[in-house]
Amino acid sequence: MFNLNFVTLAGIFALVFAGLLAVWILRQPRGEEKVSNLSDTIYSGALTFLNSEYKPLAVFVGIMAIILYVTDIPDEAAFAFIGGAFCSALAGNIGMRIATKSNSRAAVGAKKEIGKGLQIGFSSGAVMGMTVVGLALIGLTLIWNWRPDPGILIGFGFGASSIALFARVAGGIYTKSADMGADLVGKVEEKIPEDDPRNPAVIADNVGDNVGDVAGMGADLFESYAGSIISAITIGFGGIVIAGNNISSADAVLYPLTLAAFGVFASMIGAIFVRPGKGSDIGSLHNALNKGVFGSALIMVIFAYLLTNHFLGVLGPFYAMVSGLAAGIAIGLACEYFTESRFSPTQGIAEASQTGPATNIVRGFSVGLSSTLIPVISVCIAIGLSYHFAGLYGIPIAAVGMLSTLGMTLATDTYGPVNDNAAGIAEMGNMGSEVRTRAERLDAVGNTTAAIGKGFAIGSAALTAVALFSAYIDKIGIGAQQLSISEPMVIIGLFIGGLLTFIFSALTMEAVGKGASSMVEEVRRQFEKIPGLLKGEAEPQYEKCVEISTKAGLKNMVIPGGLAVITPILVGMWSVEALGGLLAGAIVTGLLLAITLANSGGAWDNAKKYIEEGNLGGKGSEAHAAAVTGDTVGDPFKDTSGPSLNILIKLMAMISLLFVPLFV
Amino acid sequence: MFNLNFVTLAGIFALVFAGLLAVWILRQPRGEEKVSNLSDTIYSGALTFLNSEYKPLAVFVGIMAIILYVTDIPDEAAFAFIGGAFCSALAGNIGMRIATKSNSRAAVGAKKEIGKGLQIGFSSGAVMGMTVVGLALIGLTLIWNWRPDPGILIGFGFGASSIALFARVAGGIYTKSADMGADLVGKVEEKIPEDDPRNPAVIADNVGDNVGDVAGMGADLFESYAGSIISAITIGFGGIVIAGNNISSADAVLYPLTLAAFGVFASMIGAIFVRPGKGSDIGSLHNALNKGVFGSALIMVIFAYLLTNHFLGVLGPFYAMVSGLAAGIAIGLACEYFTESRFSPTQGIAEASQTGPATNIVRGFSVGLSSTLIPVISVCIAIGLSYHFAGLYGIPIAAVGMLSTLGMTLATDTYGPVNDNAAGIAEMGNMGSEVRTRAERLDAVGNTTAAIGKGFAIGSAALTAVALFSAYIDKIGIGAQQLSISEPMVIIGLFIGGLLTFIFSALTMEAVGKGASSMVEEVRRQFEKIPGLLKGEAEPQYEKCVEISTKAGLKNMVIPGGLAVITPILVGMWSVEALGGLLAGAIVTGLLLAITLANSGGAWDNAKKYIEEGNLGGKGSEAHAAAVTGDTVGDPFKDTSGPSLNILIKLMAMISLLFVPLFV
Repeated sequence: MFNLNFVTLAGIFALVFAGLLAVWILRQPRGEEKVSNLSDTIYSGALTFLNSEYKPLAVFVGIMAIILYVTDIPDEAAFAFIGGAFCSALAGNIGMRIATKSNSRAAVGAKKEIGKGLQIGFSSGAVMGMTVVGLALIGLTLIWNWRPDPGILIGFGFGASSIALFARVAGGIYTKSADMGADLVGKVEEKIPEDDPRNPAVIADNVGDNVGDVAGMGADLFESYAGSIISAITIGFGGIVIAGNNISSADAVLYPLTLAAFGVFASMIGAIFVRPGKGSDIGSLHNALNKGVFGSALIMVIFAYLLTNHFLGVLGPFYAMVSGLAAGIAIGLACEYFTESRFSPTQGIAEASQTGPATNIVRGFSVGLSSTLIPVISVCIAIGLSYHFAGLYGIPIAAVGMLSTLGMTLATDTYGPVNDNAAGIAEMGNMGSEVRTRAERLDAVGNTTAAIGKGFAIGSAALTAVALFSAYIDKIGIGAQQLSISEPMVIIGLFIGGLLTFIFSALTMEAVGKGASSMVEEVRRQFEKIPGLLKGEAEPQYEKCVEISTKAGLKNMVIPGGLAVITPILVGMWSVEALGGLLAGAIVTGLLLAITLANSGGAWDNAKKYIEEGNLGGKGSEAHAAAVTGDTVGDPFKDTSGPSLNILIKLMAMISLLFVPLFV
Repeated sequence: MFNLNFVTLAGIFALVFAGLLAVWILRQPRGEEKVSNLSDTIYSGALTFLNSEYKPLAVFVGIMAIILYVTDIPDEAAFAFIGGAFCSALAGNIGMRIATKSNSRAAVGAKKEIGKGLQIGFSSGAVMGMTVVGLALIGLTLIWNWRPDPGILIGFGFGASSIALFARVAGGIYTKSADMGADLVGKVEEKIPEDDPRNPAVIADNVGDNVGDVAGMGADLFESYAGSIISAITIGFGGIVIAGNNISSADAVLYPLTLAAFGVFASMIGAIFVRPGKGSDIGSLHNALNKGVFGSALIMVIFAYLLTNHFLGVLGPFYAMVSGLAAGIAIGLACEYFTESRFSPTQGIAEASQTGPATNIVRGFSVGLSSTLIPVISVCIAIGLSYHFAGLYGIPIAAVGMLSTLGMTLATDTYGPVNDNAAGIAEMGNMGSEVRTRAERLDAVGNTTAAIGKGFAIGSAALTAVALFSAYIDKIGIGAQQLSISEPMVIIGLFIGGLLTFIFSALTMEAVGKGASSMVEEVRRQFEKIPGLLKGEAEPQYEKCVEISTKAGLKNMVIPGGLAVITPILVGMWSVEALGGLLAGAIVTGLLLAITLANSGGAWDNAKKYIEEGNLGGKGSEAHAAAVTGDTVGDPFKDTSGPSLNILIKLMAMISLLFVPLFV
């Protein structure tokens, strides 16, 4: 039973499951013409962006494949690289297509019954989740069957990473340029509601949710998932010893793949739990999602125990996996605590808004900084325990364990943007405020479960990066004393690695700022020049705004993306010790910065919502205006710079590992 | 000539020079009663704060001295620790006394002649600068004469570091609680000008400039100065080999001290250059300060060349010192570029203000992040070159070289707050807008030279911390392979070190936010409850606001300060490898965060000033309101959290080094 075919089969199952769900979604009613037209506009806007993005990416993939082919790196890695890039792009593409097909259907569903809206949104997310894991498992096993060499697999991982980085950066810049631009003129200057169809940037904003939060996230988690498995295989390939037991190379390679394959089934079972009954209230919807997430995690733990016990005969890797899983849950709960308005940090930001935007910003930023405590400690404990129980091999296994139920957790993540879009469509399509409220409530329901998913994403990124980094150190094969933190080369590397994460964040943030400024000018221009627009008597030129976002995203992904790819190669050719330091510095600083940016952004967002619920003066108060400022500042923090950092640290580790033959 | 007595003598010279300058300042006219009363109020407010601060610090010093005495650390270190703490506090105290005696005199001087204002402000700064270097040199040589053991000197350095950290944190929280509180109600809500005497927080704000920017900075640079010398002595104590030449322990110890002693004379000569002629315009005032800073640096280079050549006979350390100096200047110029309104980054922030506070904040923060590039690269180059030319010994020598003219550079730093206070006194004392403008212009003149001083402070902090860290690694005496970045313990340490800097910043920032909120409430209360206050018919209760700032500062220094002291000790007792990682992680992340916070704050401040000069709509425009928000956000960034981080990283390295006997 435990062989590569089983893993491939699990991948095929995942894709079939995704296909069935997709068929079910497409059978749901699309709504009246106005509503389905909106959905079509968003769909074609999103596809236009993806298609424009593929051109420069194809050039990049082509050039990089040639470089891989002509240098001392195994030639097969070049093909694996193309495969990884293709699968990553495909996963994001499919996820986005289905998400943009689901938005109006979720709105129509929610109109009928709130539970129906949940089911459509969740299924859309599950299509994406299952596609990601299915493509990854099939891709990895195909390559391994072709050439059983970790170096080739790393090529696959690098392909996935680079697409993920560019997609996250470009998508993040796209979505936040549109969002900030739409809000700054619409909500702040013209005082028209969010998602108002008179706002020329509203379509770009809704397209952005899909290209950033769906396609970007799909590519991101595809690479996390593949990356964690690849790093486990790389470390396990030489054979390992755990608690005195020898584990053969073949077993050490097959174990993480089989773990992931079991995860597919755990996710499917979990997904079936998510069945809200008729007439369900919010509480039971919440429970339905929770059952799915925790149910699949629990099933996974049982599967992992049985598998580890029978297949490896030594439980170390199982404990490693459990410590990873526990860390992921702890990180998720901590992120929830720091960003949800039920808890004091976010309420504190709302209170600080009463003395204006400056105190709101200072408080929010300090909440973001504080929120690093539990996640970083959790990562440290997970590293310590997984190493203790299963040596270096334990670290990626912890990440594999955390991501094994990705099919399920990604569904709760993607579910949010689909209902966000549904709420927008309800507003633009005049479906009535009840539908809008329901869609927004559905979005909110997903936040809690999404927090756990985000915890897994952050934790696994850190663990995977540490594992890849360890594999790099192992592969360069120089004495450990040369890599001592007392060596000036290593210290210099640490500084450069930390620096890269700061510069990378600066570049992405600045790109959003500039994109938003262009958007503001365009929206202002349309309000001025198109007669009757504000009165709703004329149509805005949505496509102009879509174009601005597209340009901002594509133009500005080049430098940060290039920096991430080129710097490790240059530093590595100069000194492998400095590159080791660079990776360690980037992982540490990148994790801290990513958490700070993500959580301060999330907390600002929810502090604003808390006030909008009627607290501290409610909508229209001074406090609300200050909180809107915080929310806008948080946009590029949480949706552009923050999430890109997670990919950056893995990408740099992956590229370093792949290019070792060039360095030594 | 080259012996300890020469060094002591140089220290005495420095103190005598400071005394003469102080006498000269005190002979200048204090101004009319109203003006001199204001100065007295600020003086006594500042002293009250310092006196309240000394009580908890005395308790801390007492307990820590007992711990040092009863543990395995050499008993003399306990006494040296008390000495270091005392000298550090004394340097800050003297500097602050003279600064608060100088403010009204500088205003009166500027009324007569702008050059006179410069001279008084600059002399006040020079008193502080010379006191700092004098006390440090005398303290260090006294201890070395008593017990020639680097372990004891480290006790001295630790005493200085701890006082510096607490003073910086408490002073920074004090000053920014008052500043933000005064501005949020005064400027934003009541639309009264800055430093308006009707504002109840105005005295606290002016006191804050002294306790934060003068006393805090004095203690800070005292410890940098002493710390760089101590780390050079620690590394040199075992004797060193440079380019095949053996340098004896005695010579390696004496060299940094003598370098610093020569710096005293270079600073004095530089200070004498700062003599603006009668009727000087801004340009020539600027030149006068520049001549002082660059003149003393140039003289120092010549002195260092001669000294190194004659005394050591090998030029490696001289090159190390020059690379440090060059890095300091590069960092200073980079900081200037990123924060001055003549250049595009700050102008970009001003432009982004036109679309509201959110874009102002995002742009400013991304400028802060970008501004890390040149400083970090400069530090890396300085580490690489100084190591190349003089081995590990070269790294602290680079820092010693950078700080050797501290007597001069600190003068240009402290000069700012004195003229800031003078401008406040001119406003409150109705001395006329001309005097206020002159004082403000003097403040602005100092900004450029202060940038270089700040560059030296940042660069030297990083180099000193790296040197202390290397000394720690050396002293724990474990194999380098145990300290490899591939060891999980080291990785965990790196994470914890990075984490500490984020949590520390969060705590200090939150303290300012909370202090400012209390201040806002109090100021609002007074405006409401004291009849006629806004019309200028009643006196505000200044002392209430002073009390709030004092409490905020003292209460909130405990946790971040305690964290900085206790964490390294606990981690070290658990694992010396993890502590090594912790120090490296904290240095890298701390430097990045410190630069980001300092420069984004500086850039926001100057973007606001740029608009106030009449650009982009000028005062009262929407852009100006947005820029005021940015400036307020920047207050705790640049004056509380940012500068404290520089001390934090050195303090943690110092404490780790001191406590090694407990760990191994």
